[in-house]
Amino acid sequence: MRIKRIEHVAIAVRDLDAARRTFETLGIACDHEETINGVRLAMLPIGESALELLEPQREGTRTGEWIEQRGEGLYHICLEVEDIEAALAELRGKGVALLDEAPRTGHGGHRIAFLDPRSTAGVLVELVEMAAPAA
Amino acid sequence: MRIKRIEHVAIAVRDLDAARRTFETLGIACDHEETINGVRLAMLPIGESALELLEPQREGTRTGEWIEQRGEGLYHICLEVEDIEAALAELRGKGVALLDEAPRTGHGGHRIAFLDPRSTAGVLVELVEMAAPAA
Repeated sequence: MRIKRIEHVAIAVRDLDAARRTFETLGIACDHEETINGVRLAMLPIGESALELLEPQREGTRTGEWIEQRGEGLYHICLEVEDIEAALAELRGKGVALLDEAPRTGHGGHRIAFLDPRSTAGVLVELVEMAAPAA
Repeated sequence: MRIKRIEHVAIAVRDLDAARRTFETLGIACDHEETINGVRLAMLPIGESALELLEPQREGTRTGEWIEQRGEGLYHICLEVEDIEAALAELRGKGVALLDEAPRTGHGGHRIAFLDPRSTAGVLVELVEMAAPAA
């Protein structure tokens, strides 16, 4: 299992538009927005990575629960792997607990899965296998 | 002001050796350790970035206070800039609050400065200007 890069670092916020303006002040601009599973999402590329701003749009989202418990701020890191099925099988074999036992569709239509932070030093880690760009 | 890359993502931990083993399970290995201002630090490269594990070694460190207040986990992001003096001057001019008004020496001997998270959506942001490698 080889981690290719930090694909993004996620930041949970109450006001995505205000957070976007804040990072624009630092010279970091948004290139993509979408809403997925009740959470509004903005991607702000930096080098080979991105910041992902997340604002819950309804009750009962995991992002919203995080903000209630911990406040706004750094929320998770997403690591790119070549083959997410193989990575999950390898981690399961090593005793790493998974929040998603099988990949599901995440940001940008990519296949993603979250690991259990109790297995990763308290850090919420997402794995992503990038979908091939549309032809 | 141009951000070149996410230089590292810092994770505050109580037991650095245990956290190192955890990330080694994910195929992420340490290439450098040092102790700076009472905090033990391990760098684990991923692509053009790295994870930085931080374990306080004494009372009264900012990292230790963070763990007391928020628990272990994601702590700050460090963004590389070309010229840190110019970046701080530009941000000051835009009304961004700074924790370090002037650069100081950080990890690896590089010049660093922290921004005030109240100006950056609750996220602790470090800027770094990389020192030239020793001849």
